[in-house]
Formats: sequence, C-alpha cells, structure tokens
Amino acid sequence: MNTIRERVRQFRELMQKKQVDAWILPSNDAHNSEYVADYWKGRAWLSGFTGSAGTLVVTREEAGLWTDGRYFIQAEKELEGSGIKLFRMFNPGVPSLNEWLADTLSDNAVIGFDGKVISQNQAKGLLDAFADKPVTLSSDDDLLSAVWEERPALPVQAIFRHEDRYAGKSCQEKLSALRSVMTEKNAGYHLLSTLDDIAWSLNLRGSDVSMNPVFISYLLVGHEQATVFVDSEKLDDQLVKYLAESGVETQPYENVWASLSQLPDDASVLLDPAKASRAIFDALPDSVTAVEGKNPSTAMKAIKNETEIEHFRQALRKDGVAMVRFMKWLESEVPGGNVTELSAEAKLTQLRAEMEGYKEDSFRTIAGYREHGAMMHYAASDESDVTVQPGSFFLVDSGGQYPDGTTDITRTFSYGDLTEQEKKDYTLVLQGHVDLTTAVFKTGSCGCNLDILARGPLWKEGIDYGCGTGHGVGFFLNVHEGPQGFSQKLINEPLKPGMIITNEPGIYREGIHGVRIENIMLVKEHSETEFGSFLSFEAITLAPICTRAINVEELSRSQRQWLNHYHQTVYEQLAPMMNEEERAYLKLKTAAV
Amino acid sequence: MNTIRERVRQFRELMQKKQVDAWILPSNDAHNSEYVADYWKGRAWLSGFTGSAGTLVVTREEAGLWTDGRYFIQAEKELEGSGIKLFRMFNPGVPSLNEWLADTLSDNAVIGFDGKVISQNQAKGLLDAFADKPVTLSSDDDLLSAVWEERPALPVQAIFRHEDRYAGKSCQEKLSALRSVMTEKNAGYHLLSTLDDIAWSLNLRGSDVSMNPVFISYLLVGHEQATVFVDSEKLDDQLVKYLAESGVETQPYENVWASLSQLPDDASVLLDPAKASRAIFDALPDSVTAVEGKNPSTAMKAIKNETEIEHFRQALRKDGVAMVRFMKWLESEVPGGNVTELSAEAKLTQLRAEMEGYKEDSFRTIAGYREHGAMMHYAASDESDVTVQPGSFFLVDSGGQYPDGTTDITRTFSYGDLTEQEKKDYTLVLQGHVDLTTAVFKTGSCGCNLDILARGPLWKEGIDYGCGTGHGVGFFLNVHEGPQGFSQKLINEPLKPGMIITNEPGIYREGIHGVRIENIMLVKEHSETEFGSFLSFEAITLAPICTRAINVEELSRSQRQWLNHYHQTVYEQLAPMMNEEERAYLKLKTAAV
Repeated sequence: MNTIRERVRQFRELMQKKQVDAWILPSNDAHNSEYVADYWKGRAWLSGFTGSAGTLVVTREEAGLWTDGRYFIQAEKELEGSGIKLFRMFNPGVPSLNEWLADTLSDNAVIGFDGKVISQNQAKGLLDAFADKPVTLSSDDDLLSAVWEERPALPVQAIFRHEDRYAGKSCQEKLSALRSVMTEKNAGYHLLSTLDDIAWSLNLRGSDVSMNPVFISYLLVGHEQATVFVDSEKLDDQLVKYLAESGVETQPYENVWASLSQLPDDASVLLDPAKASRAIFDALPDSVTAVEGKNPSTAMKAIKNETEIEHFRQALRKDGVAMVRFMKWLESEVPGGNVTELSAEAKLTQLRAEMEGYKEDSFRTIAGYREHGAMMHYAASDESDVTVQPGSFFLVDSGGQYPDGTTDITRTFSYGDLTEQEKKDYTLVLQGHVDLTTAVFKTGSCGCNLDILARGPLWKEGIDYGCGTGHGVGFFLNVHEGPQGFSQKLINEPLKPGMIITNEPGIYREGIHGVRIENIMLVKEHSETEFGSFLSFEAITLAPICTRAINVEELSRSQRQWLNHYHQTVYEQLAPMMNEEERAYLKLKTAAV
Repeated sequence: MNTIRERVRQFRELMQKKQVDAWILPSNDAHNSEYVADYWKGRAWLSGFTGSAGTLVVTREEAGLWTDGRYFIQAEKELEGSGIKLFRMFNPGVPSLNEWLADTLSDNAVIGFDGKVISQNQAKGLLDAFADKPVTLSSDDDLLSAVWEERPALPVQAIFRHEDRYAGKSCQEKLSALRSVMTEKNAGYHLLSTLDDIAWSLNLRGSDVSMNPVFISYLLVGHEQATVFVDSEKLDDQLVKYLAESGVETQPYENVWASLSQLPDDASVLLDPAKASRAIFDALPDSVTAVEGKNPSTAMKAIKNETEIEHFRQALRKDGVAMVRFMKWLESEVPGGNVTELSAEAKLTQLRAEMEGYKEDSFRTIAGYREHGAMMHYAASDESDVTVQPGSFFLVDSGGQYPDGTTDITRTFSYGDLTEQEKKDYTLVLQGHVDLTTAVFKTGSCGCNLDILARGPLWKEGIDYGCGTGHGVGFFLNVHEGPQGFSQKLINEPLKPGMIITNEPGIYREGIHGVRIENIMLVKEHSETEFGSFLSFEAITLAPICTRAINVEELSRSQRQWLNHYHQTVYEQLAPMMNEEERAYLKLKTAAV
C-alpha cells in the first residue's frame, strides 16, 4: 500500500478522535522560514511533496495540496497515487485554500493546526473566509507528533559570530536602530521570530537549517535589555560574553512562552502579524498591546551598507571563478558522456568549496538536463539522475554561502546542435534578462512596475513563467530575502539603493526543456534631474552567459551592447584570479557577439 | 487689493463666527465629478486656481492648495499673490492634505466642509489622520454660499435619450444586471450618486455639465422599482413615460435626502464609500445597513459591448476626418502667421461640429504653442493667446462628444526647423507611445504593470511626466472614466477585453515646450497558449502622427513597423470619407518612414 495513503489514514483516525474536521499543515516552521529543519518537514512526510512551498489540508474525506507555479510539475509527480489533490495556486478557477475550506466544511466545523506554524494573519484570513459560517479554530495541539513516530529532534548546531568587519555595523548599533523604530511606534518591546532577522540583528550565524546560516531562536528586544531564546548547547562562553557585552541575555528556547505571558501589564509589543505565529499572539496577556507592524530589521537588512556591498562583490568574484571552472569542466567532460546531473552538482559544490571562506551551498543545486530543466525547482535524485548529453539544454541554478556574501546564479548550457525553438527560447529569455538589467526607473518604483521588462519579450510570443522574476538575497543569510522582489503582484515595496535582487526570467516547456538566466543585481542611484531622481541596476554576478544559443540578429543594439560590456567586465574582474589556461578559456567565453 | 485675498479674508471672518478652524473645499461636486457645473466651482472662486483637480484648505492663519503634477505650472501662476501656498502632491517631502492638517491644527480643532462634496472615504481618511488628536468634523453647513454672493444656480438643462441602438443594452437590461449584483451582495437597495453611472444605467444623457453629457441626479435602485431624483424641468412627458416603462419613477432632486432617511427598517443599501458623500451616509437611518462596495455599473460600463465598440470606431473615423482637415488647415495657415492658439481651437471645434451627430467638445481643447505646451492642462485665454509660429511645437489635445462615442486625441505639430533636443524629445515620446501600444500582456495585468513601457524610453534619459499615462474613456460620457488607467500607482484594476484606454506619454519642459502623443486603444484578446491567455491593444484613434520631428534612425525595427502599419490603417479608414484634395494630403501624411 502507498505509504502516504497509510500515513494520511492514520492521521485521519487521530483527527476523528480529536474531533477535528480539517487539519492545515504548511511548509514553514515556527519562524515562518521558507527552508526548515527536518523537525518541521511534516508536510513532506505526510504528503510526499518535497517542494519548499506548499500547504497540505486533510479533511475527513479529502486531502489537497496548494502550491505555486514553480512546483506544479514536481507536485503532480510526487502526489501521484497519494489520493491528495493538487491545487495550482493563482491559476484561473482554482480556489484558494481558505475558499476551498469555506466551501467544503459544514457549519460548526473544527479546523486544527499547530498555532506555532500558522501566522496571525493566516489565522485571521481563515476566519475572514468563514465570515458567513460558524467555525472553530483549534491551535493548541500538534497532532503531527502523535502520528509521526520518527519525527527528527530539533537541531542543536553551534552558533558563531559574523564579524563586524563583514557586517559593517555592530549588534549594538543594530539594536539601537530597532529601538528607534520601537520609540517611533510607542512600543516598549519588539519580538522577532524570523530567524534571518534575529541572525542579522545579533551578527550571529548558525547551522540549524541546511544552507540557511540561521539558528532557531526568538529575540525579545526591550529598551534597556534584549533576550535571545535559544538552546544553550549552541552557545559557547565567548558567545555568551559577546552577547552580554552587547546587552543581550540568553534564555532557553522554550522560555519564550513564559516570558511573553509574563510581560508587564500595559506593555506594548511591536510584532509583525504576517510573520509572528498565532501562538505568539495567543501567549500575550490581555493587558498587553500588540503594536502590529513590519519587523524594522527586514527593511534595514534589505539595504546593504557599503561594507556589505564591497564584501558581496568579493564573494561574487570567488563564485564566478568557481562557475568558470565548472563551465570549463562541463565543456570538456559532457561530450564524452562523463557528466550526470548529480555528478555536475557534486563537482560544482567541490569547486565552490575550494574558494576562500566557503561554508556551504546557499540552496540545493538545481541541475536539470533536458525536460528536468522545465521543473523550476528540480533536485536530481538517484532515481531521476541522467547523463548530460550534447543536445538540448542543461540548466544549473546554484549558489554558495560565504561570510562575505550569499550567491545565487543560473546559467543554461548547451553543447550540441540547437533547434530553432531552442535558440528562440534562449534568445527571448536573454532579451528579458537584459531589458530588466538595463532599466532606468523613477525612485519609488516597485518590482511590479518593472517586472514586464523581463516578461515582455516572452509575452509577445505567448510565453510566460509561473513565478516571480526575482527576489532579494541575504548577506551570508537566506538566499530568498524580502521585502523587494520582481513579480506581477502589486506589492508596494519600492526598490532602494543598496538593495540586492535577482533577475531570473525563464521558459519552462513541460517535458521538453528549461531555460533560465539569472544574475544578482545591485540597485544604484542613476541620476537626479529636473524631472526627479532615477535608479538603475548593476549586474554584480560575474560569470559568462553562454552565447552559442543566441540568435544574435534578434538582439537590439542596446541588448547586444550590454552583453558585450558585461562579458568584458566579467573578464576583467575574474581573469586576475585565474591561471593562464583558465584565463584563455574565459577570454573565449566572454568574446563579443 | 487682490480679489482672492479679499475673498479668503471674508471667508475667514465667517469661519471665525462659525467657530471653524479649517475648511476643506475640493474641486468636485456632490456627485464626485471631475468636471462640475458652475454652481460647484467654489474652489476656483475662492482660490483663483481653475484647474480641474485640486483641493483648497483655509485655516485661520494659512491657506494651501493641493494639486497633482498636471497642474503644478498652472497653479503656481494662478496662485501668485493670493497668499495660498501650493502643495505639489506626491512630490517627495510634500505632506498630504490630511497630514498637513493633523500637523497644523491644535487639539480639539473643528474641521468644516460641505458633507455633500466630501466622500465618506475622504472623511474617514481625515479622521484616521487625527487618530492621535481629538478633532471634530462639521459637515452640515455650507459656508461657501454665505460668502459667494453671486454663486450660480444649479443647471436645468434638458435630458435626452441615448438610444439603445448606440448603447447596445436597454435600461431594463442594465438595471437587471445591477440587481443581480445587489442580490449577490445581499443588498435590497443600491444608491448611485455618480452622474456617469446614472446616465449609463438609464441610457439618458444631459447637458448640465459642459462637455460631460450628464445630468445632476441621484438614482436609488430597489429590486422592484427604481427612483431617479432629478429636477422635473429637465424631463419632458416622453422621457417620464420612457422611464416609467423601464420601471423608473421620478422625484425631485432634493427628495433624495428624505427618501434615504425614510428607507425601511433593516434595509440594506449598496453604496461606494469612495464615491458617495459623507452626507449620504449621514442621511441613512441607524437601522439601515450600508453595504460598502464599488458601484457595479462602473465595471460594467468600462467594458464596451460589441455594439458600443462598432459605434466607437465610427466616432473615431469622424473625429479623424476632422483632425486631418485641421492639420491641413494648420499647415497652410501657420506659415503666414494666421493662426493663434484660440483661433486653432475654434477652427478645430468648427471642423468637429461639421461631423454627423457632433454634440460638443469632450473637454476644453488644450492648444499650447511653445512653452504653453508644457502646461499639461493649458487652456488659452485672451491674455495668454499667442500666434503659432513655425518654430518649436504646437501641442493640441482635444476631443468630441458624439452619440456614437467620446474622443480624446493629442497630436504635437511642428512646422519649422527643429533643434536636436526637440527631435530627441519627440522621438522618445513616440517610442514610449509605441512600446505601450504594441505590448502583449498576461490576462490579469493592471495598468501599473504596463506603465513603464511608455515611460521607459524617457526614464533612460532622466525624463518623466507628472501624471498617469492613460485613462478610460466613456461612451458618449465623461472623457475620464474608471476604473482602468495607466500609472505607476499600484491600483488593482486588471485590463479586460472591451476596455477603452488612452495612451498619452509626454515630455513637458517648463518654459520651453511640451510634446504629447495620444491615441485611444481598445483592449483585445491576443492569444491563448499553454502558458495562459494574453491580451493586447489596438489603437483605434485614426489620425496621422507627425513624422517630421522623428529621429527615424533611433526607432527600433518594430517601432518603425508599427508606425508605418498604423499610418496605412489611418489612410485606409479615412480616405473613403474625404475629397480628393484631402486624400492627397492624407497620403502624404501617412507615408512610410
């Protein structure tokens, strides 16, 4: 019998016993993380769907999984035979999870979830969907642990400092900046539950979540004192001393609940209902005021300071050298049939590991040959692994964690003859990529105002991709970092100088191939004229973009100019870090078209 | 003494007597109209600023006028010496009206306004701004009438039918569609206060507001019956009979207040707090539920039906013929110094008036030579009128009201030698115009997702314009019609097939010149592919775009192709309606570049 069916059956038995009509199981942890420790991988365990984003709902009769365009193909495969229905989010006619629940459940239904993994806003959204129907939310119990016998333990990896010389600002300076915002908002306290915000605020890093250098914790900032709630095993004496000197005391992770419930009467706590869990809001005594607002650290860390930017450039140079070596290796080994998706991934990780300061990859490498490249977040496995051959495309999306920056780059390679469609797709993606890179835009513009520059060339051919065009990137932190991004969604987050954002349009033909070209860009001041102030981007990722699949005659003058200028920069920046043979190869790969 | 200063002084005396600390005087009427009858032109009377959009605030010590980028230059001139400070809306560092009031007024201030001309949302926004400061709103009194001795009377122009053969749908069909939405929203009544919504719903037109074929009225729709509140002088027996047959009874305009206050207990009324006035909400008894939502007619009338679209095309052909004759006349008369801004305006109105069905212009023609063209909404006067000469640019933005459509077109003419800057500006505007026209976009895209296509070429040169790029257009109704539009503002109104929208980027160099090119476009279905469904535009305005100021070598292949193809269409569509001499002229003006 299908393992997943059996797990869901057992789970339903427990639901019946607990008198719960529907259970919601999201992919995030208690800290609203996108990538989570194994302890929180219950959604994958119960549904079989392993993608990074997706929410499972189990009712007594049905089960459904909601995920977005990046994962439609993968989810379809992984859910096969499970009895779990795939809901393709944002597709026309597909109900949202809340709509579906409101339609499906009867009056007075009980909807259960672990209050620690559902944000306050999600819980409120659920109640809004049931405005016309009586419903009970049950959020105190975590049914999953009872069924998931071999649930992994919480991780206890050592925490380490991220030196001020990288961060550019000390922990004390950062806490003081947070306190200024608290004062503005009349808040006596600020609770941070998101792990990257905490790591950034304290200039600490950890290894609790693979490829995301964070540590599981809560941080409660008062005006005089701050408290980090974290497993004491993770801290050595030096760190405790460093924290104390920065005005931060340490308490065990689980103590956060008691601390919240013991906040003084009439205290006010700044916290973000989109990030902080229902359980946190529930833990606050009635006498305490929740001042709802975004975590100030999110906006602060999105704008990289000069020190961070200089380090970021260095990290991207190192990453570029590893990428060029990887390209050179591929080019010599693919024709002999010596490369598989998995061996390429291993080689790339090994080449990055040779670079100074490399800690780990920044996300699981996507190395997808031919139709595997059409799965936006494909991860090769022993079962799926194939040999990379000269025909079609080999899409490789990867990145590294260095103390001086987090990288994220996609290149799409080809080694054989190309069909007209292949060339056309590659050229369109490149055109979109370049048109976005070369944009000049009014200060105040948001990602959604610019997104069409990348999609425009594809749309003219009736092609689109089911995900955003780009995302912010952390500084030796999470590879996906808010608040900025490129997408069609109307999100009011203006791009600001110092922000780092990826540019990654793609074409994904299910069962055929995938093409994506991704660079990291820095938002910079461009000009100040009588008409206002303008911003622009600088592509700071440094690695050749393959030119053999380009229909050069389709490029506009300015697209071609940009490509040639970019390649010249790549050569100038990387050549000094290479040996002669590598330099010769790089020269070839960065030749003008 | 300055007349305006004297009026403001008198007004302040009255404010003191009435114990009001600040008075808000917007530009709209009791129906949230953009263009208003003279009765409601109090803001212009008291401030001297005659633009169509702007709000005056008078406090005991200060006075300020808030207006947007279209009117900065004009407002600066008109406010000179008045003591009224200009607040340039949306410019960095400029407080909003509400922010300014909250900063300026002391605790327990009384803010007064005529509750009929301030929407419920505006009143709520004001209260929000005063969240931390006690304030009283006083909305029952209209101080203006007491000071404005020669205030004009309300207009009493005759109402007439807009035949079903133009409208494509009968009044009964439209009311039935409104009732379906009322049923969906559990509303027993729906109150319409916006004049274009009422005119559209009843298939009636009027002449109360110059160039906007509406009539001053309220419409209360119940499930069985509807009531239009309108001055009975405006209706003849036939119209009363037509209305009765459509299930609409008539009552005097002022009766709306009694009718609202006498709504049955537990009645529910659908009404739009962004459109309906504070006075309307105040008139509802406590037992009545206000169901807040957009007027369903706004979305319905934005999507033109097949009949309307066919008529619209015909109106644009007629308008195009008038425009070509105008261009021909200009070209023969300007070199002799025989044309002024005002004489050109008169000539164009006369040429339109010769077209079948012409009723009036759709807005006051903007005919701005040289630096006058830099004032986006310039209206020539005897004082400002100048002779149009061969040098620089002559910008003409105009439109007509026909029973088969409302038109709005801008062309920028030149007759002499052009400087490099003039050519560059003209070419950039054309490029933006064409790039937006030729967009293909995913169904669901909003104006703010596309706006950058028009601005992009300008932004690359550090140029911008302080207004939106385009607006919806009514069908023999208001030339500005929502909800769609092109601007950078994140307004979630997707473009839909059947919508009509203008495309009018421009460059406005204060004191130098203005360039604008404007066509009306129809949103159409483009394609349905495995990646989704896509929309595109068709430029349905038909008139040559001057080519002599274009740097042709700067155009991309596709920009040039579009221009030549457009000109071919213009020729094919208009030539059959012209005499031989006109045709020859048109041939010349539509020659390929």
